[in-house]
Amino acid sequence: MTYFTNINKIKYEGAASKNPYAFKFYNPEEKIGDKTMEEILRFGVAYWHTFTEDLSDPFGVGTAIRPWDKFTGMDLAKARVEAAFEFFDKLGVPYFCFHDADIAPEGSSLRETYQNLDIIVDMIKDYMKDSKIKLLWNTANNFSHSRFVHGAASSSNADVFAYSAAKVKKGLEIGKELGAENYVFWGGREGYETLLNTDMKLEMDNLGRFFHMAVDYAKEIGFDAQFLIEPKPKEPTSHQYDFDVASGYAFLQHYDLQNKFKFNIEANHATLAGHTFEHELHYARIHGMLGSVDANQGHPLLGWDTDEFPTDVFSTTLAMYEVIKNGGIGRGGLNFDAKVRRGSFEPEDLFHAHIAGMDTFAVGLKVAQNLIDDNVLDNVVDERYNSYTEGIGLDIVEGRTDFHKLEQHALGLGEINNKSGRLEVIKATINQYLLRAYAGEISFNREIMG
Amino acid sequence: MTYFTNINKIKYEGAASKNPYAFKFYNPEEKIGDKTMEEILRFGVAYWHTFTEDLSDPFGVGTAIRPWDKFTGMDLAKARVEAAFEFFDKLGVPYFCFHDADIAPEGSSLRETYQNLDIIVDMIKDYMKDSKIKLLWNTANNFSHSRFVHGAASSSNADVFAYSAAKVKKGLEIGKELGAENYVFWGGREGYETLLNTDMKLEMDNLGRFFHMAVDYAKEIGFDAQFLIEPKPKEPTSHQYDFDVASGYAFLQHYDLQNKFKFNIEANHATLAGHTFEHELHYARIHGMLGSVDANQGHPLLGWDTDEFPTDVFSTTLAMYEVIKNGGIGRGGLNFDAKVRRGSFEPEDLFHAHIAGMDTFAVGLKVAQNLIDDNVLDNVVDERYNSYTEGIGLDIVEGRTDFHKLEQHALGLGEINNKSGRLEVIKATINQYLLRAYAGEISFNREIMG
Amino acid sequence: MTYFTNINKIKYEGAASKNPYAFKFYNPEEKIGDKTMEEILRFGVAYWHTFTEDLSDPFGVGTAIRPWDKFTGMDLAKARVEAAFEFFDKLGVPYFCFHDADIAPEGSSLRETYQNLDIIVDMIKDYMKDSKIKLLWNTANNFSHSRFVHGAASSSNADVFAYSAAKVKKGLEIGKELGAENYVFWGGREGYETLLNTDMKLEMDNLGRFFHMAVDYAKEIGFDAQFLIEPKPKEPTSHQYDFDVASGYAFLQHYDLQNKFKFNIEANHATLAGHTFEHELHYARIHGMLGSVDANQGHPLLGWDTDEFPTDVFSTTLAMYEVIKNGGIGRGGLNFDAKVRRGSFEPEDLFHAHIAGMDTFAVGLKVAQNLIDDNVLDNVVDERYNSYTEGIGLDIVEGRTDFHKLEQHALGLGEINNKSGRLEVIKATINQYLLRAYAGEISFNREIMG
Amino acid sequence: MTYFTNINKIKYEGAASKNPYAFKFYNPEEKIGDKTMEEILRFGVAYWHTFTEDLSDPFGVGTAIRPWDKFTGMDLAKARVEAAFEFFDKLGVPYFCFHDADIAPEGSSLRETYQNLDIIVDMIKDYMKDSKIKLLWNTANNFSHSRFVHGAASSSNADVFAYSAAKVKKGLEIGKELGAENYVFWGGREGYETLLNTDMKLEMDNLGRFFHMAVDYAKEIGFDAQFLIEPKPKEPTSHQYDFDVASGYAFLQHYDLQNKFKFNIEANHATLAGHTFEHELHYARIHGMLGSVDANQGHPLLGWDTDEFPTDVFSTTLAMYEVIKNGGIGRGGLNFDAKVRRGSFEPEDLFHAHIAGMDTFAVGLKVAQNLIDDNVLDNVVDERYNSYTEGIGLDIVEGRTDFHKLEQHALGLGEINNKSGRLEVIKATINQYLLRAYAGEISFNREIMG
Repeated sequence: MTYFTNINKIKYEGAASKNPYAFKFYNPEEKIGDKTMEEILRFGVAYWHTFTEDLSDPFGVGTAIRPWDKFTGMDLAKARVEAAFEFFDKLGVPYFCFHDADIAPEGSSLRETYQNLDIIVDMIKDYMKDSKIKLLWNTANNFSHSRFVHGAASSSNADVFAYSAAKVKKGLEIGKELGAENYVFWGGREGYETLLNTDMKLEMDNLGRFFHMAVDYAKEIGFDAQFLIEPKPKEPTSHQYDFDVASGYAFLQHYDLQNKFKFNIEANHATLAGHTFEHELHYARIHGMLGSVDANQGHPLLGWDTDEFPTDVFSTTLAMYEVIKNGGIGRGGLNFDAKVRRGSFEPEDLFHAHIAGMDTFAVGLKVAQNLIDDNVLDNVVDERYNSYTEGIGLDIVEGRTDFHKLEQHALGLGEINNKSGRLEVIKATINQYLLRAYAGEISFNREIMG
Repeated sequence: MTYFTNINKIKYEGAASKNPYAFKFYNPEEKIGDKTMEEILRFGVAYWHTFTEDLSDPFGVGTAIRPWDKFTGMDLAKARVEAAFEFFDKLGVPYFCFHDADIAPEGSSLRETYQNLDIIVDMIKDYMKDSKIKLLWNTANNFSHSRFVHGAASSSNADVFAYSAAKVKKGLEIGKELGAENYVFWGGREGYETLLNTDMKLEMDNLGRFFHMAVDYAKEIGFDAQFLIEPKPKEPTSHQYDFDVASGYAFLQHYDLQNKFKFNIEANHATLAGHTFEHELHYARIHGMLGSVDANQGHPLLGWDTDEFPTDVFSTTLAMYEVIKNGGIGRGGLNFDAKVRRGSFEPEDLFHAHIAGMDTFAVGLKVAQNLIDDNVLDNVVDERYNSYTEGIGLDIVEGRTDFHKLEQHALGLGEINNKSGRLEVIKATINQYLLRAYAGEISFNREIMG
Repeated sequence: MTYFTNINKIKYEGAASKNPYAFKFYNPEEKIGDKTMEEILRFGVAYWHTFTEDLSDPFGVGTAIRPWDKFTGMDLAKARVEAAFEFFDKLGVPYFCFHDADIAPEGSSLRETYQNLDIIVDMIKDYMKDSKIKLLWNTANNFSHSRFVHGAASSSNADVFAYSAAKVKKGLEIGKELGAENYVFWGGREGYETLLNTDMKLEMDNLGRFFHMAVDYAKEIGFDAQFLIEPKPKEPTSHQYDFDVASGYAFLQHYDLQNKFKFNIEANHATLAGHTFEHELHYARIHGMLGSVDANQGHPLLGWDTDEFPTDVFSTTLAMYEVIKNGGIGRGGLNFDAKVRRGSFEPEDLFHAHIAGMDTFAVGLKVAQNLIDDNVLDNVVDERYNSYTEGIGLDIVEGRTDFHKLEQHALGLGEINNKSGRLEVIKATINQYLLRAYAGEISFNREIMG
Repeated sequence: MTYFTNINKIKYEGAASKNPYAFKFYNPEEKIGDKTMEEILRFGVAYWHTFTEDLSDPFGVGTAIRPWDKFTGMDLAKARVEAAFEFFDKLGVPYFCFHDADIAPEGSSLRETYQNLDIIVDMIKDYMKDSKIKLLWNTANNFSHSRFVHGAASSSNADVFAYSAAKVKKGLEIGKELGAENYVFWGGREGYETLLNTDMKLEMDNLGRFFHMAVDYAKEIGFDAQFLIEPKPKEPTSHQYDFDVASGYAFLQHYDLQNKFKFNIEANHATLAGHTFEHELHYARIHGMLGSVDANQGHPLLGWDTDEFPTDVFSTTLAMYEVIKNGGIGRGGLNFDAKVRRGSFEPEDLFHAHIAGMDTFAVGLKVAQNLIDDNVLDNVVDERYNSYTEGIGLDIVEGRTDFHKLEQHALGLGEINNKSGRLEVIKATINQYLLRAYAGEISFNREIMG
């Protein structure tokens, strides 16, 4: 069955196209450096936001018009698979991602849930044979059902811990079955509503134990996906244990898991935590922990997880800058953990929104590559820190000094001269790159920074 | 004396220029619609941030290197005038703005302060004769001195109210003398640290009285400048009485001042108040209250007034959209109430930062005009609201209906059909306009919105 | 049928009680000033949070265990009425509040919806005859159904405007039928998701027209309830038109409605808008616009409307201070627009939470009355502003001065002396009152403030 | 010389006292458990806020009236020592804290700065001999001078790194000389203004190297103070490297410093980072990293570091709960890193504010101890997590399970029963303890929680 009947395969038509069903900037074949845009960006569609989300909010029911919603139960699950593969194909994305609960309904028992999952996984596997699409990652939804009210692996109830383990076990098996490149842990309710009734140490210890068991089981079954933790500071809980990348890294080191996990970094989670998107990517990168990206954006004035499709080209430029500097996103990808607004409820909006997001990241990629090719920021950094390439600076970096030697150096100094950090001109230069990216070739060098 | 010896007049060199001391996008002569960029944008330099700011912050002393700082007292005040007019000329801006305290030091008595002001005002007047620069607005600094610790016109101390009146009286006289096009009231400490010790009604009533007296005095001396209130939600006080445009409008109506004042809207104040910049401009515009603009931007993750130079081209596009829709900014202008970062402490950074800001607004202007020329957003709006152009909708708008008739209409309705609001594709289209603005002529129409 | 079988009527047992089903501080009979706590506090139960809320959140399904949920459709609606009156009686509150959609399900047509409402309204009326409980206010839920996706009276669709009018018309009739003391307008979606597709002027004008028609219709049918607007800055929309009390007051004045409406002020809405609860109450009070209160509290670190039961005794003290200074809450009341946390899902928690809220406001009332009886804050204020009771200050207040006279006064001043605002000792004194409120009689006077 | 001439030694007078210069709740001799309040609370006065702060803010000059300000240079430094020891004695605090720059002015060379410090340190040492006051901690101010514009140990300039090392070296020597119990590192500018010009990896590596050198030097000179890092998320930088306790713990583990440092936790820094005060204390405690406390509070609606004196008794109750559970604060203390408001500028306010803070923490201590004595929260926690004390829960905790066994357990489960988390009644119970703390003995047990 066809669900998006009036929509054809989305093609690249260039920046002047007036066709709303065309890419203006994302050209999958275009080479950026030595890879194509498609190879670098590794876009993924989020099953939940695109095929199961009804666009309800805390103050109103769903508004989404989805042609497959005429079905129910397992029929609905199957219809969604059909719709999904039609969408993947027409949009031309290489990856998708899902939670177990997205693809199949819970049964009346865990065993029946397994059976439902098996049926849909088989169906997905069949569809994947006829498609070039691959599974970027899957995960277990251990937060929506009421049994997870007090958490999953950090629940105050040991039965829930066990139930969560069973669901992740099944998830790992599904991931292996479908060739997932990553497996994600977003601890939706692994945190607390209030410290007042919480044994945080026990809960964190249990989380550590849970992750170790997951690693062990993946190894046992030969599932070699990259394991990813997805930090988020709050919502739905008041405080999540993996608040941001740094706190996640503290956790992983404390429980000796730092070599088993990397991070899946979401833009909107970054800003909710009081960071920029690029900060979280950068922190993960320099610690060797950048695994994958949830591509979305928050609303600058709203204090919750709005999961908007990314349209901020300045932000995607800085994000792609980090990805390129990381040598690419590796086995990860850019998953659109983003939903259309409640007012954008027509099926067509799903295409519009993904096109917007893909174009926005394509622009970011191109501008970032231009900045890197011209050493724009590298030159700034090299010049700022050049005192560490010789003399006392080099001694510091190479560990050949101590407080005695440093004091002697300091006592011998006259007035110290610092140089301007030049933030304003750097930003202006990035704007210049941005606005000229589609206006022919330009080449800047450091002299532009004065 | 020359203070910016190595810097020549800043010229427009176009988007490909590698010269950091050139405009890439701001071309004062370029026609946008039927006016030049210079005529529309009416840029102003803020005396305080550019000539008196030392770049100290709550955790550290000033870092600014300013060649005129070798002077002190009135000599410093005079040197600043020299530096300012050199800067205005080299930058090529048509306007400047100042507080009384920016241009001349306080004397040991109010009378001596007046004398200091008179000397500098005379000097400025002389310089203005030989320059094309004009005074966009002046104002009284009734917040920095310790006497204003509890406010100025809203002080708990009647002597301070009187002192504030004297300073504003002098300010109005100076404004008239220098031909100021506007006079601004930013009530730096017109608010409260805590409600617990505050008679808010008395303070607001006194503010109302103060404004009426200011209006009367300006009329008396024949100073016909536009009067502007500049809203800000907080900082330095915990709560300012003119929190945002809406609360300022409530105040003006309550004290019957709504025909005497308009608003000077600052981007960073808007975001601190929980609004977007364009919201505040729009609200003021549709109420006929848009007077002038303080052009800057806040930091998305910092909770205080960072007063950064504007570099966000998406934001300036939406801001200029409002200005054009307003029929221009009238007697107001775009004053850079913005300061270089503490790390950008060299004199050159003053040029870099203003160039960045001017280019950013020039881009915004051009893209906004393109959007308007192509009716991009107008078409969206016209289509969304077309039910108000006929039938029951027209009856509503023209006041020909009541709850009885509306109920009858509603009882006759079947299922109501709404249409998608299309937020994602609208944003993508604005991005497309932005990224193509410097890539040759393009013309879009509503069909792009699907 | 009985739903709260194990729970008896909640009684006041005093601060030492160990009974979780007893009031520790709320003693309905206790005189505070010349009225009883019950008469002053006028508590109301919110039908939606208590009887229809399922405790779902954006990341999970409902968890609430509600014995009446075994029913469906109109049977469920009736069961809820039974449960509600049992709850009202056992809790001992004098008021309740509801939206139309809370009490009866929508039918397949507006006419059928009316019929459903009529049945339940009759049932409620019967129950009210046998109860001392009264209707504090009712309102129309014009935001949850998908037809309100783009707003109600501010919808872009004229049919929705008409439909909204029909529902409010019915609401006014129901209010009259049940003797409601107030009628509330919370414009859940009267705002915008984005300015980019919004005709804000038309929407606000339509809102103004809508309110005038509501006023007219109430007059027509002889329904003399107090009309209340409930401000909220955002959520579900990105920006609500009645952002806060001040912007609501601007709106009412602009559309000449300021004598027809007052405000229903919610604590959590105040803090989301960047104000304190007491600020919004105070602003409304001094403008004669304080109508009623939605008693709840937000989470200090979460950026959305958490609607928690009030437990902050410092905050309720300052709130009740405003209420007492207002001469009481008039025809309004303290409605618990608050819901138990998702983890507090047992029926008993509904009692616990209301007891917590009622006790917290009872404490606030008592402490506030003590502060007023001892003139604690009044003395502070009188002393701070005493310069306005004579000389130039009195001239200012009585309108006998102008900028000339004020300047003369200022020129004659020597150094101005201000006095400390004493914030820290004022807060400490309030704490002292709070902590001693249940420790026997104490009496402070202004000397405590140093 | 005497500076606080009209003020006598502050004494405890009890909750009914009307004397503003008396403690109402802090009774140093009172036993709480087996220690006195004085021994547990270990209050410290912050030299900077109390003796050098002028109460300027970004919008105005200082307002503070300080009798010692008639002096300048080294005379001022000496007068401050005199004033400080008078203040310590009259207030009756056991500890104080300072930055190097607080106690002595910078000289024209580092060597002269050392000399200035030596003179004042000798003077302080003499005064300490005649006083019971001890040095809680000292630190180096490596952020206020313009040389630190780009950071100190993380500066882009190697000379600044060396200079910072020299200052910390001197600081460690001073700490040893004066018997400091701790040495604090607050990296005021150890972060970035913008990632765009920053080599974050080099900066963090350098910070790691710096801390190792500090540890080595302290060992070398036999200074065995506890080393403390004080996290802060932002301000003055846009992003600090030690954002919060968790990110600091990530850093310490990464650089193998976790056994050499603990944390100095500030309430206002916690809330700026998106946490509660008690969260940061708790996180540090369960990781064995709770070192000391900077006792202050932020303003709930202001987005910057307001450093207010603590007056929130609910918050100090939860804070002291963590301290008691930690077995006390060890070698750390409660340092009032708090300043009077700009409007509280009289010398007397310094006493009022400290009394307010000390009383507030004394209340918190007493209530927390009552909660602990009655096992109020412990009983809640024990009951919630009891499934981990037997069966599968015990297997989980003791590491005797894996995903296979857990899945088997889960498959055998019927519907999982969770219990209410009871947040509302817990909060109400804490309120009850708070309000009854000074109303005679009460004893609650778990049955109160229903």
